[in-house]
Amino acid sequence: MTSSTSQNSRRQGWAVQSSIVAKRTFNPIRQVVDSMKIVPHPDKNMIALSIGDPTVFGNLAAPNSAIEATIANVQTGKYNGYCHSAGDVASRQAIAENYTCKEAPLTPDDVIITSGCSGALDLAIGVLGNEGDNILVPLPGFSLYQTLAESKGINVKHYPLLAENNWEIDLEEMDGMIDDRTKAIVVNNPSNPCGSVYSRSHLADILALAEKHFVPIIADEIYADMAFKNFTFVPMASLENSSVPILTVGGLAKRWLVPGWRVGWILIHDRNSVFEAEVRNGLNSLTQLILGANTMAQSLIPAMLNDTDAAFYDGTIATLSENAQLSFDMIEKIPGLTPVMPQGAMYMMVGIDVAAFKDLENDMDMCQALISEESVFVLPGSCFQKPDFFRIVFTAPREKLKEAYERMEVFCNKHRR
Amino acid sequence: MTSSTSQNSRRQGWAVQSSIVAKRTFNPIRQVVDSMKIVPHPDKNMIALSIGDPTVFGNLAAPNSAIEATIANVQTGKYNGYCHSAGDVASRQAIAENYTCKEAPLTPDDVIITSGCSGALDLAIGVLGNEGDNILVPLPGFSLYQTLAESKGINVKHYPLLAENNWEIDLEEMDGMIDDRTKAIVVNNPSNPCGSVYSRSHLADILALAEKHFVPIIADEIYADMAFKNFTFVPMASLENSSVPILTVGGLAKRWLVPGWRVGWILIHDRNSVFEAEVRNGLNSLTQLILGANTMAQSLIPAMLNDTDAAFYDGTIATLSENAQLSFDMIEKIPGLTPVMPQGAMYMMVGIDVAAFKDLENDMDMCQALISEESVFVLPGSCFQKPDFFRIVFTAPREKLKEAYERMEVFCNKHRR
Ligand SMILES: Cc1ncc(COP(=O)(O)O)c(C=O)c1O
Ligand SMILES: Cc1ncc(COP(=O)(O)O)c(C=O)c1O
Repeated sequence: MTSSTSQNSRRQGWAVQSSIVAKRTFNPIRQVVDSMKIVPHPDKNMIALSIGDPTVFGNLAAPNSAIEATIANVQTGKYNGYCHSAGDVASRQAIAENYTCKEAPLTPDDVIITSGCSGALDLAIGVLGNEGDNILVPLPGFSLYQTLAESKGINVKHYPLLAENNWEIDLEEMDGMIDDRTKAIVVNNPSNPCGSVYSRSHLADILALAEKHFVPIIADEIYADMAFKNFTFVPMASLENSSVPILTVGGLAKRWLVPGWRVGWILIHDRNSVFEAEVRNGLNSLTQLILGANTMAQSLIPAMLNDTDAAFYDGTIATLSENAQLSFDMIEKIPGLTPVMPQGAMYMMVGIDVAAFKDLENDMDMCQALISEESVFVLPGSCFQKPDFFRIVFTAPREKLKEAYERMEVFCNKHRR
Repeated sequence: MTSSTSQNSRRQGWAVQSSIVAKRTFNPIRQVVDSMKIVPHPDKNMIALSIGDPTVFGNLAAPNSAIEATIANVQTGKYNGYCHSAGDVASRQAIAENYTCKEAPLTPDDVIITSGCSGALDLAIGVLGNEGDNILVPLPGFSLYQTLAESKGINVKHYPLLAENNWEIDLEEMDGMIDDRTKAIVVNNPSNPCGSVYSRSHLADILALAEKHFVPIIADEIYADMAFKNFTFVPMASLENSSVPILTVGGLAKRWLVPGWRVGWILIHDRNSVFEAEVRNGLNSLTQLILGANTMAQSLIPAMLNDTDAAFYDGTIATLSENAQLSFDMIEKIPGLTPVMPQGAMYMMVGIDVAAFKDLENDMDMCQALISEESVFVLPGSCFQKPDFFRIVFTAPREKLKEAYERMEVFCNKHRR
């Protein structure tokens, strides 16, 4: 080999840094949780109500349609190869048919299948925002919006949700936040971590504000159709009389109880062809970077969307809504804690009246002590930029939830002033 | 809702652009192919030797271990949930055990499971390079390196591979290309599109050059162990006496014949702890953006790596190497075409002596006419920045290959001067 020395390279030793992008990529939840001492009480079994994964306790199983289709499809050998970078066409067709509506018709071309709803958010945020731009995200809200945006050098502005108003958006605040570099408003309905389900009229107000400022909406509807009795999930895109272009993101993770399968999608709702000039092409370009979801998992979409019994969906909603009620009722009785009744999804936020406790200064303190004394793990509101709250995931079996809340009561009684 | 007008936002109508990142994301192959008229001859069935997907013809099936494990695992309900963002631990363990060697030991912590080898490349390039930096990639080479790098604003410099020297790297050229902003050298062995398998001594020369300039290597070994008789695949990281830190990328796609399942990995080889300071953490941060591979597919890794019969691997290699020989023998006889004998993988490059043909000006011309007249589809070398060549994927059944090459001969005879 050559022994000439290049003029251009003058490194004298190994010093390899990680990129700026890697350095600015971080998960606020992980940061908070890593700063906690998580040592459960040695004599009490751990009850973790902290993870947004409905499958961890084994009580909520995937639909039979999914299992049967897997067994059938894997034996055909037909779903081992690459598919279209925007997703398998038959699966996009099934998604389009399932989510189309008169006010917001969808064709397979309006559907992009992604690696989880996370992948859908990655594309949606990535196609709209440049370094130095900003997007609006809810507070409290799912932390991935911030992780993805900041990784790309896009700033986030947190618009407040009002606990006292069933976590509706403070629209006046939002109005003041939008500026020339605001490239998207992320609206999460039903909400993680709030469990709120927005009314049609609130959605209309959000759309009006987006329209006033000509800012597209990213509608995170991964909990679509997971609304409890007396509440109705309304897809953002189904509202009439709005010109706002919407990228709706969703997936199989929550409603079909298979978050690990990493199947998500983007529905392009573009009544006025605002995305026609560039955004559609941009999304398709971005799908070519790493390709999307596993083709075997994609092949299950038609069966899962079309052949799943109503009993499966009803069963999940019944379990979740009973668990929500149980959680609310038991925690409401504990002085110093103020649960906000969920209307859907699988989360409940609980307010902490710090003044009621003698030796717990904040949400972090409380959650850490709850683990070490009672082996109950709930996420501090700080994970969602909402200290003085904690979040409960109420997917665990009833008996486990009961035990967790009993322990919580003992804990609060001990620490109360 | 509020009617106050924000001072900061002054948009007067809908004008939504796509991001700079989306605009600079493009796939050179797609660009070339989109510019071709692909209209097969109406009376001849299309034989597409263009797609790097060994599953398209149905003659190369996934191992039974994979199918059996899928059927077993999907029924347990245990692989529906989220796993660690760097990948399921048992699967990382299996990968580490399979790829560890005395010279380059691996633990599960050195393994990151990703969404395909594409996902592995995305992380490896993304953790090392910043906007304005550059990476070195092979010419001819797999186009995704460029797509990923340019999407991130990282420049690519193409180092030449020498056809006359079994596609070894022109090290003198490479030496002159490395500068202060060169953050990685991508080495693809065995190679797509060349089908070359590098000798230990060539790998040692590459490592010496990387060491001289203190530049890490990204070793794309997605075709690891797919070497034909008389050739031995040597993992880059297994060479002794080198201090070069290496990110080896690989996956299930090719050797296990399941490219659609999107399971890839990074093996962190860091003998001298160069990646310890930042790169390891950086990689782990990046895994949190969209999470990696489907957990069900990840759950198959131990079975696929440990329980697949030798006969499966031997059978694939036998088929591929017979097909390579057939392809070489038949094309060698066609005046004006010069095939370069492959040593592994599933690709062969064929040189075009343009002067030998009367009405074909370049690779694009030839490939397009070959489709319209003979319904045989091979990729023009321009897809790999190597005009005057075309690439053949020789995974098709023997009879199909024969027919394709017979048609190719007819075609060349017709167009020859
Ligand atoms: C609001 C919200 N959006 C998106 C996601 C990501 O979904 P996926 O697991 O499909 O990436 C989650 C997961 O918890 C979520 O809560
Ligand atoms: C050299 C090379 N690297 C990486 C890949 C991507 O592999 P995967 O399909 O696992 O993303 C390919 C696919 O063709 C390839 O040829």
